[in-house]
Amino acid sequence: MANAERIKRIAKRVTERHLAGNKIIVVLSAMGDTTDELIKLTQQITNRPPEREMDMLLATGEQVSIALLAMAVDALGYPVVSLTGPQVGITTDDVHTKAKILNINEARLREELAQNRIIIVAGFQGCNTHNDITTLGRGGSDTTAVAIAAALEADVCEIYTDVDGVYTADPRIIPEAQKLKIISHDEMLELASLGALVLQPRSVEMAKQYGVTIHVRSIFNNNEGTLVQEEKDMEKEKVVSGVAHDLKVAKISLLDVPDRPGIASKLFQSLAAERINVDMIIQSTMRNERNDISFTICRDDLARALTVAEQVRDEVGAGGMAFGQDVAKVSIVGAGMITNPGVAATMFRALAEENINIEMISTSEIKVSCIIKAEEAVKAVQALHRVFELDRL
Amino acid sequence: MANAERIKRIAKRVTERHLAGNKIIVVLSAMGDTTDELIKLTQQITNRPPEREMDMLLATGEQVSIALLAMAVDALGYPVVSLTGPQVGITTDDVHTKAKILNINEARLREELAQNRIIIVAGFQGCNTHNDITTLGRGGSDTTAVAIAAALEADVCEIYTDVDGVYTADPRIIPEAQKLKIISHDEMLELASLGALVLQPRSVEMAKQYGVTIHVRSIFNNNEGTLVQEEKDMEKEKVVSGVAHDLKVAKISLLDVPDRPGIASKLFQSLAAERINVDMIIQSTMRNERNDISFTICRDDLARALTVAEQVRDEVGAGGMAFGQDVAKVSIVGAGMITNPGVAATMFRALAEENINIEMISTSEIKVSCIIKAEEAVKAVQALHRVFELDRL
Repeated sequence: MANAERIKRIAKRVTERHLAGNKIIVVLSAMGDTTDELIKLTQQITNRPPEREMDMLLATGEQVSIALLAMAVDALGYPVVSLTGPQVGITTDDVHTKAKILNINEARLREELAQNRIIIVAGFQGCNTHNDITTLGRGGSDTTAVAIAAALEADVCEIYTDVDGVYTADPRIIPEAQKLKIISHDEMLELASLGALVLQPRSVEMAKQYGVTIHVRSIFNNNEGTLVQEEKDMEKEKVVSGVAHDLKVAKISLLDVPDRPGIASKLFQSLAAERINVDMIIQSTMRNERNDISFTICRDDLARALTVAEQVRDEVGAGGMAFGQDVAKVSIVGAGMITNPGVAATMFRALAEENINIEMISTSEIKVSCIIKAEEAVKAVQALHRVFELDRL
Repeated sequence: MANAERIKRIAKRVTERHLAGNKIIVVLSAMGDTTDELIKLTQQITNRPPEREMDMLLATGEQVSIALLAMAVDALGYPVVSLTGPQVGITTDDVHTKAKILNINEARLREELAQNRIIIVAGFQGCNTHNDITTLGRGGSDTTAVAIAAALEADVCEIYTDVDGVYTADPRIIPEAQKLKIISHDEMLELASLGALVLQPRSVEMAKQYGVTIHVRSIFNNNEGTLVQEEKDMEKEKVVSGVAHDLKVAKISLLDVPDRPGIASKLFQSLAAERINVDMIIQSTMRNERNDISFTICRDDLARALTVAEQVRDEVGAGGMAFGQDVAKVSIVGAGMITNPGVAATMFRALAEENINIEMISTSEIKVSCIIKAEEAVKAVQALHRVFELDRL
């Protein structure tokens, strides 16, 4: 019943927007537990379902929800049509369960819009050039929405989440955190990959590539959310837009590594072969022509990464290895940093004044990240939020 | 869990057949309660779901089961691929929820067969020329199977049911009923439409049209079932192949109808406009240029049919109306009847010897049906089974 009520509420909201004169395409995910229930079914049958058949199965989740939403919109008396990913002409590559969108054939969408119909599209899915159903993996529905917005040059792609926008820091630990009115794609990308999981980085990347403006809004209210848009459209109000933190970090160091070409390459290729995403990498030249190489990973990957690192240590004759899982990453993000020297220095000073030791540093043009002790993460975010005056937007 | 076990059992059976050197295409329905559960979901949203969206929704049921069966076959180590109706290239007309198959594009099927893959096809579904998903309605999966068998000129189309073949009469009331080894399409059609619901008439019609041999078998055992095939291939062993009965019958009579052209036409067009299927029709010329017109319908349609009949009675100035719902239809079916005069007479004599009064009679080239009192149906079937020696095949 919860699902049906939710669908009716979405239908009401969609028709209100339609009535206000908007041409609307809704991209929908599977309802609540649908995907988990389908996965449970497979587990009764096999532990290793072929990925092609997994896609065939999981794609039904979105198909059910678009049909039900179309029924709910129809029941309110509005013209509506639901379309699966293949029907929309979303062509993807062949990588089942995490396919990439290659192309969207807009013909059907334009035809239905011309009929003034509200279009309900199944997110997360497409089909490859062999006409096999594919799914897009994590963040797939957001990606579908952005891709369609790009193909049709929509004014805006609204993405509904359980928060009502992007904040200057996590409001659960910084009560004074402010909702940002506008943020650039690049800033959002840094924030997203830094643990502020409002949007999947993948959909933001695509939005950046095609110049799509995303409006991050809440499913629970009608508040204006946060616009994620091209930088050139924006006034830079603040040097730093937000402070992000990520507690799911682990750090591994290879110590006393011979300073020969190819060793870093061997290490990170081996990790990549195991599909372990490496985040920060620091190499420091030591005396006696030997280095330390440190890197961070998601804490869930620690055990697998250690196995790889031990092997590489033995192969290259490193002196030792160390790891820590009691670390966190705190970061400041802001497009204004490029033209404002001294932002990193301000960050380091603020942390020093709180007696927080910085273990690793990594910078890009629009962010600075520090690895610190996990237990000091909250204190660090509070200090940074204060020093960059993010409570006074 | 019951569903998963059932799927695994089907997978095992399919792979055994594959191993024996058969090229196999499996057509699957939705699992157990799936369709009912999807319909329940719609009822929480609207009482009048658009039929197009109903098809979008219901088609997911088969898609789930083909993906799971493909996983189960894969887990046993055999090459397999699942395909939805649209992927198979099953083109239908536009009549959502009860579409008719127009064409099958065999290219994909032949390609997969050439790769020696076991193919699992979603029954009951296709897509129309606008690329919208359609479903085939009642008996849809059987129809899909026969259509594919016809397109690929398969040796045989096996249809698995909860009985292990076609019997000379309903074994629940005639313990001596014999399983038929062979029956013609025409005989099967008569039996199917006479209440022996082993196969849907629709799939048998298509099998007859394209000369497809159907093997009716049980899901519960490996027994040989009944072959339904072209008459020319058959030896006629018996004049009468089976006795069918249908207890869900109602009868309506318009009495004292003026003998003018167009009255029967008005009555039956009005019934057709209400989508009421009329089975037997009898018109008897009376004295004074007035007729009685009697017809039978499915008992479920009685209330609606009476409303129509009352209206026509008043319009045409009929003298009266009568109806009965305590009637049943018993029929004998046999391709051999055409060349054996006197079969009908034998039937009427057998009923008369049991003191069973015949209220209506209808004949075709290969069947004779009688409407009798419902309470005498079992006795009638027993008598007919005996007189035509169907217990001694």
